[in-house]
Formats: sequence, C-alpha cells, structure tokens
Amino acid sequence: MTGSAVWGRWSADVLALVEAALDTWVPARAPARLGEAMRYGVLDGGKRLRALLVQAAAEAVGACGTPAGAEAALRAACAVELIHAYSLVHDDMPCMDNDVLRRGKPTVHVAYGEACAMLAGDAMQALAFEVLTPDEGEGAGVDPALQARLVRLLARASGESGMAGGQAIDLASVGQALDEATLRDMHQRKTGALLRASVQMGAACGGVAPDAPAWAALTDYGHAMGLAFQIVDDVLDATQGSDKLGKTAGKDAGANKPTYVSLLGLEGARAEADALLQQALDALARSGLGADATAPLAALAERIVRRDH
Amino acid sequence: MTGSAVWGRWSADVLALVEAALDTWVPARAPARLGEAMRYGVLDGGKRLRALLVQAAAEAVGACGTPAGAEAALRAACAVELIHAYSLVHDDMPCMDNDVLRRGKPTVHVAYGEACAMLAGDAMQALAFEVLTPDEGEGAGVDPALQARLVRLLARASGESGMAGGQAIDLASVGQALDEATLRDMHQRKTGALLRASVQMGAACGGVAPDAPAWAALTDYGHAMGLAFQIVDDVLDATQGSDKLGKTAGKDAGANKPTYVSLLGLEGARAEADALLQQALDALARSGLGADATAPLAALAERIVRRDH
Repeated sequence: MTGSAVWGRWSADVLALVEAALDTWVPARAPARLGEAMRYGVLDGGKRLRALLVQAAAEAVGACGTPAGAEAALRAACAVELIHAYSLVHDDMPCMDNDVLRRGKPTVHVAYGEACAMLAGDAMQALAFEVLTPDEGEGAGVDPALQARLVRLLARASGESGMAGGQAIDLASVGQALDEATLRDMHQRKTGALLRASVQMGAACGGVAPDAPAWAALTDYGHAMGLAFQIVDDVLDATQGSDKLGKTAGKDAGANKPTYVSLLGLEGARAEADALLQQALDALARSGLGADATAPLAALAERIVRRDH
Repeated sequence: MTGSAVWGRWSADVLALVEAALDTWVPARAPARLGEAMRYGVLDGGKRLRALLVQAAAEAVGACGTPAGAEAALRAACAVELIHAYSLVHDDMPCMDNDVLRRGKPTVHVAYGEACAMLAGDAMQALAFEVLTPDEGEGAGVDPALQARLVRLLARASGESGMAGGQAIDLASVGQALDEATLRDMHQRKTGALLRASVQMGAACGGVAPDAPAWAALTDYGHAMGLAFQIVDDVLDATQGSDKLGKTAGKDAGANKPTYVSLLGLEGARAEADALLQQALDALARSGLGADATAPLAALAERIVRRDH
C-alpha cells in the first residue's frame, strides 16, 4: 500500500463502487427537478475523501469480509458523502458563502435556483439516513443494531454539536479575531466531526465496540485527520489558484475569515499538518490492527496532508 | 374520549410531555445563535398534531405500557415535530414562500437572519435522527431494531419520496392548472407522508409488524388524515383571517397556487374532508384494536377535520 500503484488500484475500486451505489440510490425520478438537482449535487464530484475513510476503516477492522459488513460499509460511505454534499449545496447559497463555482461547475443554486437547491440539500440529508436503514428486503441484511449505531454516529456529526454547529461559529466569526482555541473548535465541528465519524462508522461496520482499544485509536486517527484536512485546505486556499481547486480560491482571506494560515503563518500551518500526520500514523500503530490492515488508512493520511488540491 | 373533557386532559398531558422533552433535547448551548434559533423554531409553537398522532397510535397498540415503549413513542413524537418544524423554517425563507409571520411570531429568518435559519433547519433535521437513536446510557433502553425502524419510517417520509418531493412539486406548480391527481400526489407527499409516518411510528413503538392487519388499518387511517388535513387547511386558508391562523391567510390563492378549494369548490372540499373522516374511522373500526384503545385516534380525526384554525 505504500506503493502508489497499489493505492491507486485500491482507491479506484472503492470509488467505482461508491459512485455506482450513489448512482443507484440518488433517485433520478424524484418529482419536478428535485432528483436532477440532487444528482447534480452529489454524483461524479469531489475526492470522496469521506467515503474512502469509511472504507479504509472498514477494511482495517475486517468489516468487508462478509456480504453484510461490506454492504454496511458501502451504505455508510454513501451516507457520509450525501451529508457532505448537502452541506456544500447549502453552504454555497447566496445567504451563506454565495459561491457560484464548485468542482469546476456552476453551484446547484446557480443551475437550479435557490429554492430547488435548498430542497435538494434537505432531501439529500434525509436520503443519507434512508440509505443507512435498508428494509429487510433490501441489500444484504445489515443488522438493525448496526443501522441504529451508524445513524447515531452520523446524526451527531452532522448537527449542532458537529457540522452545523461549526458552520454557525464560522458564520458568526467573519471579521472577528478568533483565537486558536476557537478556530480549532470551529473546525473540529465544521469538518472534523464528519471526517472522524467516517472513520468511526467504518469501524462500527466491523463491530468494534466503543470501549475497544482499536475504537479509541481509530477515533484519534480520525480526529487528527479532521484537523489536518482543514489546515491543508487553508494552506491550499492561500497558495493555489481557483483552476486547480475547482472552486473560488482566496475566498476566506478575502472575506476576512480567520484561517490557520492567518493564525499560524504558512510555515506554521504546514508544520502543524505534518505533526498531525505523525499523530495519525502513531494512532494506527497502537491500534493493534496490524500494518497490513491499516495500510489504506495510512496511505490516505499521507494523501490528505500531501495533496495539492 | 368522545367527551371533550377526557380529550382535553389526554391531549394536555401528551403536549406537556412532548414540550418538556423538546425543551431538554433541543440544545440551548449550541454555538453562536444556532441553539437559540433552533429553540425559537421548535419550542412552544403549533398544535403538535404529529406528536399527538404518534402518541395516540402508540397508545392504541399498547406501546406505552412499558418504560421502553413509552420512551420510544416520546422520542418518535419529538423527532416528527423536529422534522415538521425544520420544514417550516426552510419553507418560510425568502427563496421559498417568503413568509414573515408564523404562529403569530416573526419567522426564524426574520428573527435570526437567513443563514442562521437555514443552518437551524439543517441542524433540526439532524437532531430528529439523533433523538431517535439514543445511546445505551440514554433513556429507557429503546431496542436498536426499533430505533432503526423509526429512522427508516421518518427518513422516507421526509425526503424526496415524501415531504421534500411534495415541496418540489408545489414549487413547480405555481401558476399551473394542476389536475386533481397531481394535486393529491403533491399533498400526499408534502404533508400526508409525515402525518401517515407519525401514525406508523406510533404503531411501530408497540411492535406492530408491517404485515399485521392493525398496521394496514392504521396506515389507511394515517393516509386519510394526511389528505383531510390538507383539504381543511385549504378551506381555512380561503375562509379565515390571518389573526385566527397565526400566519398569512389567502396566500396560496394570491400566489395563484392550486388548492382543493380552487379545484373542488368550498362545499366540495368540505364534503371530501367529511368523507375522509369517515374512512379514517372505518379503518380504526377494522383495526382489531378495539374502540377504547383507538379512542384518542378517533378523537384526533374529528378534531383534524372540525378544527377552525
């Protein structure tokens, strides 16, 4: 897995699986233009980092060895991507970030209108929880107790104590001189909570109990990656052009929003990201899961920190 | 229960329970003004019709006889109210209905701004699914399989095949001459799906299986009440003033939206509501649950159709 050919094959397989599942589960036939807008917002876009984290964690704990475990992990991966995608649709709207470009395409509200974009985001959130709770007749029989656990993890990471709470702090912080503790709290909620939940959901698919050492180690990994991801995002926002990012670059600094770069400086932010990478790798080493099993998670951590877009 | 004193006591008890639970579960401490906006949007407002349907159905099937069943029904009642309240917050926003008055108070986006209102709605949806999936340590130990079933019912009723889908049809139908079938489809999704799900969730709390006669009968009851509710809403919108309704009256007709009144006429709409009431009562009679057990559901049906606001 340290070789990039092995990583390339692993991640391409996972992405193909996730993309095909989303294509099936995000309904084309939803009324009016709703289904179309939902598909526009979620299909064929993004790095699918959260899906990769779910699948890598699921593999690390051996969840994919049974049809039911593999099905649960695939559903978890798609559900997390649906939550992430809905948050982007809403975040891009005029009353929030007012962004017109996302992944190199017009944003959903530009393409479908604001009302449809808001409804599409709402329906994508509901769909995430639908995907996690298949009926007996659907899929490979995901244990209902696991379904409930996955919903519990995802709902808590998405709501006021997680993503939505972080966005509210972000909203209130424009033009404010945030200290590092508040900035960290904001990002732990806004992006960190969902990234950590991705790892935890993958681990849950393998039945890892909340009091198991592997659960604590994978949670630490997810926590470190959540922070590192945002720091690297801030670094890229400050150093890359819009073409490369597929979205409007330099927007946070322009809006006078605090970032890790404005707080720590460019070099400080990079050093912090490196330190978090090391923390994540240390957490994997003490997880007791073995280097082979955790190789996808290790490779993913490297790529999160070393990415250039 | 036919006596209005008995009904009054029953419903007052249920409402006090639900209001207290929402007060506990909707977090005051969410960051920035998010928690405040969520509480403003959901507490102390509305008729709590959906919560009453959940509780009445739960009582009909004997769910409230155990602490776990009662806890499940209370959580289901609050979750449905959270979904309903979030939909109103989003529906009132300028890009949707642009309404400034709701339950006699300024709408959430007027009081807290559009961005905060959108986030509050998003967080309320997530919270609904959190409330349905308590951790082992929380509450009276709701069976995880029941948790998953409740999430399944609520997510399907909220998303593209339910509420959000109905709103999308509504959005696309302004100024259109809808035929009766399309109007019914829109309302079955927009309001009917969640009302029916309320009844089903209450029944699920008592462990009623999807192939049981009582499940089919209660589903029919919920279906009839979903339609009747909307028809009565249209009648009231056409005949009552804003003061009585606590929201802007005559808005749908003003926006040239199709309604049951514009389609069936005032008397035709009232006759249809009466016929649906009878259908609902017939469904209860054939449910096999007995007149005493279904008395709250019967009383609720009467009140849904006979209400004047």
